[in-house]
Amino acid sequence: MKKFAVLGFGTVGSGVVELFYKNRHKIEEKAGSEMEIGHILDLRDFPDSPFADKFTKSIDTILNDPDVTVVAECMGGVEPAFTFLMQCLEKGMSVVTSNKELIAKKGAELLSCAKEHSCNCFFEASVGGAIPIIRPLHRCLAANDISAIYGILNGTTNYILNKMVSDGMSFDDALKRAQDHGYAEREPSADVDGHDACRKICILSSLVFGKHVYPESVYTKGIREISLEDTTAADELDGAVKLIASVVKLDENRILPAVMPMFVSHENLISRVDGVFNCVQVEGDAIDRAYFSGRGAGKFPTASAVMGDVIEAVKHHKTVFSQFWVDAETQDFVAGIEDLVCGLFVRFETAQDTVETTALLNAYLDKKQLTDSVVNVTDAAFVIDAPLTAADRKELVDMLTEKDMKAASLMPVMPA
Amino acid sequence: MKKFAVLGFGTVGSGVVELFYKNRHKIEEKAGSEMEIGHILDLRDFPDSPFADKFTKSIDTILNDPDVTVVAECMGGVEPAFTFLMQCLEKGMSVVTSNKELIAKKGAELLSCAKEHSCNCFFEASVGGAIPIIRPLHRCLAANDISAIYGILNGTTNYILNKMVSDGMSFDDALKRAQDHGYAEREPSADVDGHDACRKICILSSLVFGKHVYPESVYTKGIREISLEDTTAADELDGAVKLIASVVKLDENRILPAVMPMFVSHENLISRVDGVFNCVQVEGDAIDRAYFSGRGAGKFPTASAVMGDVIEAVKHHKTVFSQFWVDAETQDFVAGIEDLVCGLFVRFETAQDTVETTALLNAYLDKKQLTDSVVNVTDAAFVIDAPLTAADRKELVDMLTEKDMKAASLMPVMPA
Repeated sequence: MKKFAVLGFGTVGSGVVELFYKNRHKIEEKAGSEMEIGHILDLRDFPDSPFADKFTKSIDTILNDPDVTVVAECMGGVEPAFTFLMQCLEKGMSVVTSNKELIAKKGAELLSCAKEHSCNCFFEASVGGAIPIIRPLHRCLAANDISAIYGILNGTTNYILNKMVSDGMSFDDALKRAQDHGYAEREPSADVDGHDACRKICILSSLVFGKHVYPESVYTKGIREISLEDTTAADELDGAVKLIASVVKLDENRILPAVMPMFVSHENLISRVDGVFNCVQVEGDAIDRAYFSGRGAGKFPTASAVMGDVIEAVKHHKTVFSQFWVDAETQDFVAGIEDLVCGLFVRFETAQDTVETTALLNAYLDKKQLTDSVVNVTDAAFVIDAPLTAADRKELVDMLTEKDMKAASLMPVMPA
Repeated sequence: MKKFAVLGFGTVGSGVVELFYKNRHKIEEKAGSEMEIGHILDLRDFPDSPFADKFTKSIDTILNDPDVTVVAECMGGVEPAFTFLMQCLEKGMSVVTSNKELIAKKGAELLSCAKEHSCNCFFEASVGGAIPIIRPLHRCLAANDISAIYGILNGTTNYILNKMVSDGMSFDDALKRAQDHGYAEREPSADVDGHDACRKICILSSLVFGKHVYPESVYTKGIREISLEDTTAADELDGAVKLIASVVKLDENRILPAVMPMFVSHENLISRVDGVFNCVQVEGDAIDRAYFSGRGAGKFPTASAVMGDVIEAVKHHKTVFSQFWVDAETQDFVAGIEDLVCGLFVRFETAQDTVETTALLNAYLDKKQLTDSVVNVTDAAFVIDAPLTAADRKELVDMLTEKDMKAASLMPVMPA
């Protein structure tokens, strides 16, 4: 009989408990042993819960129970989660967490403490909710040199952007709709300003490149400035505006992580991922590219990922898996947004002649010897998918301004 | 230093060898130890190969080398691959294979032999090429009760169906194009008649439901009868014809695996998976649904999956993972196609009045109390996404025939 504990009985924690008892037989079969929830930590009282006898308000109850081998943290926030998990690891318990803020800020410390005490620290649920991404990236794709990751890692903003296109709503109306449906918080900044997606791309970047990437080092721009005109123009150009969290390997020593709205062509599956779904595109030298998509949040989707990790931790208690990164002395390996090389989406202030715009763009690409680029033009906007540097993009925009083709908005283009 | 051997130096085998030496440092880091290829088994001579000194024509060389702990089989076909892998397992070596025919026909025997000798038998590369699907299904989604899997598991047929839509080609012309590009064999039956997809859905079915499903038990229909008229009509109905390999859990004791062309609505991401890409949709009680997509074949994509398994096997040599199913005494748990409940796509022999068709369909659905079904009608065809039994579907078609609305083709509809 293997006992595990659950920290926090909120949405995710209660989902873990319910899911365990619902599919207990299957779960025990996969884990290879009988299992039981030993304790549930929460400061609140749940006198009517069927699990009332399992609740404790003190982490010591768990730390002092030698039968507990795995602890699943579903509290959220950095403290006291961090202190509790460090205490558990020091006692030789393996830990599992759905807490992206915690891993993005304290991952290196937790992983190194786990290693030191020969136990595991798993965090599949911290990125992409139900989507298996951490383990596939690190294990199944282990033979690849990963060159880039692009993802829709925040369901709330994807829902909003999608509603703007499908229902012709303004950003404000779509946000209100998301709040009414419970997809967005009353204070929506963590989602719409990109901070949530930023934490997740920090975790993926750290995992793939082996050094801890801190949220402060990552260029982060949300979707507040995206207008209905932008999403409409993108739609007419056979694409969609998506909040893309990405990380690109620039060379052996530098990576460029970023979160920002991008134009994504309908050639790419990511542009078709709608509603609250997330999607991660992984590029590697052997696989070319692979996509992982599913529900990025929610009670049971997240509980599924937590429980998958708990099973793995129960099954391989004392094996240390190499899902690991180190704390870097500096963040010099993280490039800034000025190093971004990408195509450009431009929406004009006023309608333009499409023949003229096309001629102008082709002349520019000719000059730059980028003639195999994809160009798409309407009278409201255009998109070029070509490797343009920041200087190139500025030059192009200056050229347009000179011709009185002023840009109402500019956006990077995700490579098709 | 951990030594592994490669059986077969064809496309996949040579890919594994090249990939190992290309990314050796990364691979060793993930495996947690230095690695080397001990032997390459192939009956042919490769005197100019940089690996010439590693070749052997006899499996005994490998069986008698006590330093070899893992063997990667990339030969294809059931024999001699089966005999060789059984011998390796009996010697306590872990085995990895990309051979879907072998696993679909002999998986239960190999897995049971591996278990008996406390070693691993991995086969991530056998389904979906580069796509991580076996391990995510079995590990990351372990806490779910899986209710259905739908997949595009054959890239050749997906390329053909896609070409028919995008370039308005007939099946024959699209097949010829696929052959010219090397995507289809001269003798294309394994692909176009659905046998390849059938083997893969057998593997996924066995894995998820725990009992070996044999290819002979699975209803299999290929794409030879799909006409340009069908793909065009599907496109006009906001969907696409895809060769779908699926398995649905009917109740606690029965599953229904099948391979057949289906109408897939553009509401579903699978309809957007084009060219030689594969995609697998997994439905579970906690995750709702998740998608996995990538290159389903090819030298390096397949080698990536094989090498990922080799790393896992090297890292956890003597651990037996529970990726396991048993040989069933009968195939009674496999339901036949007559139990299929699904919507219907009908293309008419001659153009029909859309108002009349719509009225007729709505009356029928009314009668069946299926009024929340999705109905889409053009003058050439219609699609209903509703849970219709075989008897329902026959009744509907009979009703149409009576009204002289004869069906030129019929197709099941994948639930959106």
